[in-house]
Amino acid sequence: MTQEEARKSLAICRQRIDEVDLRILALLNERTRIVEEIGRIKQLVNLPIYEPSREDEVFRNVTGNNPGPLSAEAVRRVFERIIDEARSVQRQRMGG
Amino acid sequence: MTQEEARKSLAICRQRIDEVDLRILALLNERTRIVEEIGRIKQLVNLPIYEPSREDEVFRNVTGNNPGPLSAEAVRRVFERIIDEARSVQRQRMGG
Repeated sequence: MTQEEARKSLAICRQRIDEVDLRILALLNERTRIVEEIGRIKQLVNLPIYEPSREDEVFRNVTGNNPGPLSAEAVRRVFERIIDEARSVQRQRMGG
Repeated sequence: MTQEEARKSLAICRQRIDEVDLRILALLNERTRIVEEIGRIKQLVNLPIYEPSREDEVFRNVTGNNPGPLSAEAVRRVFERIIDEARSVQRQRMGG
């Protein structure tokens, strides 16, 4: 493979990644809207934001259904971040 | 809203989140396959794994196309984690 061929192939791969990222972004926003709804429901009936057993369930759902190639540990780390952000969204909503 | 109604609504929301999460997971794995391909191409022509300008481009793509409700900072933090994992995948591939 020449440098020029490599450059072209990389450009195609990167465009595909940008497209995948926008689809991930759309799902993260869809997820956030549901999390906001959960926050509203919890506020109405005075339930706590932080529910460790539910967070374990979220991890089990994704690590238990992961065909790879991303490792279970990597999936767990990415979803740790997603869950942290969801917790912030609920906290802001209940504080506001 | 009664506690019972809240419990039912929360269960529905959580099921929707679990479904969204599996779609995010599928995209993360699709992304990883493309990242592995990039790793192979870079290895063939001896290009470096770490390319800060490309990482900036990834951030610009997602933060510049984010309709919310997730904040730009939250999007950035989630994609920082995703990019970190992508870098690990390329490093493992080039080491192995």
